[in-house]
Amino acid sequence: MHIAFIGLGIMGKPMARNLRRAGHDMVVYNRSRPAMDELVRDGMTAAANPADAAARADIVVTMLPNSPEVRDVVTGDNGVLSGARNGLVLIDMSSIAPLAAREIAALCGEKGVTMLDAPVSGGEPKAIDGTLAVMAGGDRDTFDRLREPVLLKMAASAVYCGPIGAGNAAKLANQIIVAANIAAVAEALTLAGQIGVDPAVVVDAIRGGLAGSAVLEAKAPMMIRDDFTPGFKIDLHIKDLANALETGHGVGSPMPITAQIAEMLQTVRADGGGQCDHSALITYFRKLTGTGGGR
Amino acid sequence: MHIAFIGLGIMGKPMARNLRRAGHDMVVYNRSRPAMDELVRDGMTAAANPADAAARADIVVTMLPNSPEVRDVVTGDNGVLSGARNGLVLIDMSSIAPLAAREIAALCGEKGVTMLDAPVSGGEPKAIDGTLAVMAGGDRDTFDRLREPVLLKMAASAVYCGPIGAGNAAKLANQIIVAANIAAVAEALTLAGQIGVDPAVVVDAIRGGLAGSAVLEAKAPMMIRDDFTPGFKIDLHIKDLANALETGHGVGSPMPITAQIAEMLQTVRADGGGQCDHSALITYFRKLTGTGGGR
Repeated sequence: MHIAFIGLGIMGKPMARNLRRAGHDMVVYNRSRPAMDELVRDGMTAAANPADAAARADIVVTMLPNSPEVRDVVTGDNGVLSGARNGLVLIDMSSIAPLAAREIAALCGEKGVTMLDAPVSGGEPKAIDGTLAVMAGGDRDTFDRLREPVLLKMAASAVYCGPIGAGNAAKLANQIIVAANIAAVAEALTLAGQIGVDPAVVVDAIRGGLAGSAVLEAKAPMMIRDDFTPGFKIDLHIKDLANALETGHGVGSPMPITAQIAEMLQTVRADGGGQCDHSALITYFRKLTGTGGGR
Repeated sequence: MHIAFIGLGIMGKPMARNLRRAGHDMVVYNRSRPAMDELVRDGMTAAANPADAAARADIVVTMLPNSPEVRDVVTGDNGVLSGARNGLVLIDMSSIAPLAAREIAALCGEKGVTMLDAPVSGGEPKAIDGTLAVMAGGDRDTFDRLREPVLLKMAASAVYCGPIGAGNAAKLANQIIVAANIAAVAEALTLAGQIGVDPAVVVDAIRGGLAGSAVLEAKAPMMIRDDFTPGFKIDLHIKDLANALETGHGVGSPMPITAQIAEMLQTVRADGGGQCDHSALITYFRKLTGTGGGR
């Protein structure tokens, strides 16, 4: 297929490469030049702007930082919609606000462009390995048609979640639960430490029960070792939680847990921790107790 | 061994039966008579009071609601310590405040009584099956000696967590993490529902990733089905979180997550949900959104 890939960051570049490896004809576009040049050396074609990229493709994939960038790249001057022909499919794989995805999809619809919102979980290593997890919303037939030849060339799984915005709704649910679990593990292990009990022993005592989780397995050891190599950065988690809060406010869903944890993460960022793994949330507690390592 | 078992509630009664089944000579005591009579018919001996129970035993096991009850049964008039001989072992399996366990252990020490704090996780069915999970603190040799013949007759696992209070510290960590995870799952699934996305699909999309947890597996389906059959009751979780807060205040460990969730659980209790499973915390969100089932 002819695929245009827009947004060649840490995630987008390896994702585009996996599509190329699967045999697709790739046109690429990025705001800054070097990432494009790199992929041109891998046999892909550089586009002049998003409109140009879209004009040469049947499918446009976007992988951008947040809702405003997607809105701009799709609907702005020289954006995807100004180059799109009727029948084009836009797969936005960025993690954005579900309501923004719906608004952008409505504008796409006016031009005969079908949009899927298909954010991923998994970081750079899984983008390189092609083992991301895709959560998708939008037209079911379009999803079914592109799941195997496109999505599963970048991901190990691709789950259909419902109408447009549903992919990002699932992603936000994921990010809320992960953040809360990290905060709870941090609070609980700090308490154990203050009582004088070894946090590693506590983790071992509780991991098999109802407190067991992927966060406890992956992040508690990082907290205990003071190793905050990302992983997933606090800056990005703050962005996702801001989208969750905006969404909650938009649909009238109370977000007390998310609001509190977003605020704690902001504190860690203000203290210089934005580029650390989100497990560095434990430093919020350590600062207050005046104990333990730093970052 | 000669074991006195004090506190024959929903948990204590089947735990005493499992010790009897393992061949121990059992003396039992309970504040109200019927539970005692029942166990006497199973071949156990009723004691007149905790002192009497302790006087006839090498080991006293207590399984009581909270710190004040344990303090009273152990150190009060006709309490365990007034009947105890030098060398007695007290295994308190109640879930109490770690600092209370330390204070009671110190009073035990003055009378030559060695105390383990050994709270459990797992509810009535696991108490009946003898498959509870024990988290223990106190003298290591005493723990090692009694692990196999006593603790593992009631439990599938028994983990040594450190000095006295460490068992309850691990238990509190467990309860904090479980509560926060339930709250996060409730907040996230309510948000998904408000966006118009099926919460069951969201659970399916995220369960394999970093948001995956025992809580997501066990409690999300209950939330989705509106089935709040306990399980573990909100009243009891409030008690445990109150102990966590008291402990945090005592040792100077900040508890923002625990405080917030304790308050949400109090709201559900005030609304009549105290006897529901803790997954009924989702009704806190439903009331505010004016959607979904009730209890």
